[in-house]
Amino acid sequence: MSQETDTDSTCGATTETNSSSCGGSTASESSESKCGGSTTSDTSESKCGGSSPDSSESSCGGSKSDATDENVSATADDFDVDPGRLVAVGLGPGKPAEMTTRAKESLRGVDHIVGYTTYVDLLPDDIVEGAEDIYSTPMCGEVSRTEEAIDRTLAGNDVAIIGSGDPNVYALGGLALEILESKGGSASAVDFEVVPGVPAAQSCAARLGAPLVNDTVSISLSDHLTPMPTIESRLHATAKEGFTIAIYNPWSRKRRDNYQKCCEILLEHRDPETPVGIVHAAGREDEETEIVELRDLPDLGESDIIDMTTTLLVGNDETYVWDGRMVTPRGYERKYEY
Amino acid sequence: MSQETDTDSTCGATTETNSSSCGGSTASESSESKCGGSTTSDTSESKCGGSSPDSSESSCGGSKSDATDENVSATADDFDVDPGRLVAVGLGPGKPAEMTTRAKESLRGVDHIVGYTTYVDLLPDDIVEGAEDIYSTPMCGEVSRTEEAIDRTLAGNDVAIIGSGDPNVYALGGLALEILESKGGSASAVDFEVVPGVPAAQSCAARLGAPLVNDTVSISLSDHLTPMPTIESRLHATAKEGFTIAIYNPWSRKRRDNYQKCCEILLEHRDPETPVGIVHAAGREDEETEIVELRDLPDLGESDIIDMTTTLLVGNDETYVWDGRMVTPRGYERKYEY
Repeated sequence: MSQETDTDSTCGATTETNSSSCGGSTASESSESKCGGSTTSDTSESKCGGSSPDSSESSCGGSKSDATDENVSATADDFDVDPGRLVAVGLGPGKPAEMTTRAKESLRGVDHIVGYTTYVDLLPDDIVEGAEDIYSTPMCGEVSRTEEAIDRTLAGNDVAIIGSGDPNVYALGGLALEILESKGGSASAVDFEVVPGVPAAQSCAARLGAPLVNDTVSISLSDHLTPMPTIESRLHATAKEGFTIAIYNPWSRKRRDNYQKCCEILLEHRDPETPVGIVHAAGREDEETEIVELRDLPDLGESDIIDMTTTLLVGNDETYVWDGRMVTPRGYERKYEY
Repeated sequence: MSQETDTDSTCGATTETNSSSCGGSTASESSESKCGGSTTSDTSESKCGGSSPDSSESSCGGSKSDATDENVSATADDFDVDPGRLVAVGLGPGKPAEMTTRAKESLRGVDHIVGYTTYVDLLPDDIVEGAEDIYSTPMCGEVSRTEEAIDRTLAGNDVAIIGSGDPNVYALGGLALEILESKGGSASAVDFEVVPGVPAAQSCAARLGAPLVNDTVSISLSDHLTPMPTIESRLHATAKEGFTIAIYNPWSRKRRDNYQKCCEILLEHRDPETPVGIVHAAGREDEETEIVELRDLPDLGESDIIDMTTTLLVGNDETYVWDGRMVTPRGYERKYEY
């Protein structure tokens, strides 16, 4: 979800929210969306009026009328039907083979799939073809997209909101519940379900060997939603201890300084020779993996391998590199002979 | 892997290691294993002599002869064949539907599957039936079982070593590499691969809603491999910060004090009303889920819901409970109206 977290900061959410509530579902509407929301509909029976030229006839009329008011968006009371089911599905690293069977079955069981365009593109063909409607937005709009998913659910559709990795890791599981509550809905009424997936820390660690087999912390360097002083304090607190550290969202053009500050803090507490695994664009065509020493990290800030699609795995004092693999001992060597 | 980490402490590894090297593969030998290693073999062609009455003819002779020496176990040089492939596979929460397609395909592609009996029991029937040999040990023997997997690999078999969750989370990915190195093997030669799975923190979080959507730390309370003072220091350092905390291996008969000490430390830094999610035996028949307040945790130490199969998810200062779900805001509410 890292790209979203970052790029969402360039979007004005309130306007998006109102312009896109159930509104991405016709071409004319999606062209008005500041997020360029697009949709593929293979039926005229969508409760969101997917291919209806007149959305005032759709059961999303509630949010439609609200769209004329910049300050109010749809609430549960605006929908006069029983809500559908809402499921937050983690796709894992990205390739269909790395999804769980449960995730695939969940997506086959819903009417609508809502997600960031990059993640929709990762879906297996049969799931894309089987969906009644798919609403995707490009590099912005977590909040509006999540509200879109909830409006569609409250309108009576079974909806899946998707993301890479796991819905509990810097992802939309919480936002979905927050917006559902703000709309006067309830988690029970929509039978809210979270389908877990393999998080980036684990899929990246697997590519490097066994860097994270002991106590581990994940920290995002994005200060879009967490103040930088808090992030720095967390880096200090955990770098002092023996945690291995998975760093999400390490760099963006707007956050060069966060990356450099992070490197300084890590070097303040750990040996310059500490192994650091770098995984760029895991599971994508431009995937790149490298194991470096902590001392090398600052100079890599401006290199192509460090960007918002990169995950850094910082070893602890015991981590070593052997035969191209990064290994953090679990501690058996202190107890057993082998 | 929590149960293993704990119960392994009751096993003498060196003896196991030598008595079990490729030795679980005939009934007579497994009956000598202190771990009660058992095996199911559906072929007489196993390179480990799975059903051969005379294992001295098996290509595991190297380790077999070492088994007469209490201080030496098999090394790569003891095997005069090209090694097979070694893959560490994470099964995820436990149910076959929660495994990734890649994990299932990896297990279908190997000759031997090695794992803790409880995890072998979780495998889909077609994978169990399709395997040439399955070596499982009950509640002890992580080290011996991992050496068994490596000896079988060095003997020319393609081997999968399995565990629940992810191979990088308190699991055997690192131990496999450590033992492989100690035997003079190389990760490249056995084409060592890690297939990630959904960790317990994520599968348990999904059951509770969205408790972990911000910076999160995992800490194991097992002091079998990590000294208790280190664990306490890590708890203090992270409880002071805004991390949500996933606690693995919270309680065992031998570690009642660790649990109580952990509760004390958390209460020292966090509000007594902080929500704590308790997930017992996730994905198993005796699964039980409860959301309590931090203040209630100490008294639950002796209750059935807290044991080695339990994962605790400790909220931060912003975590709240709504409609039976545990929610940790990601921070959008500070930026957007919804």
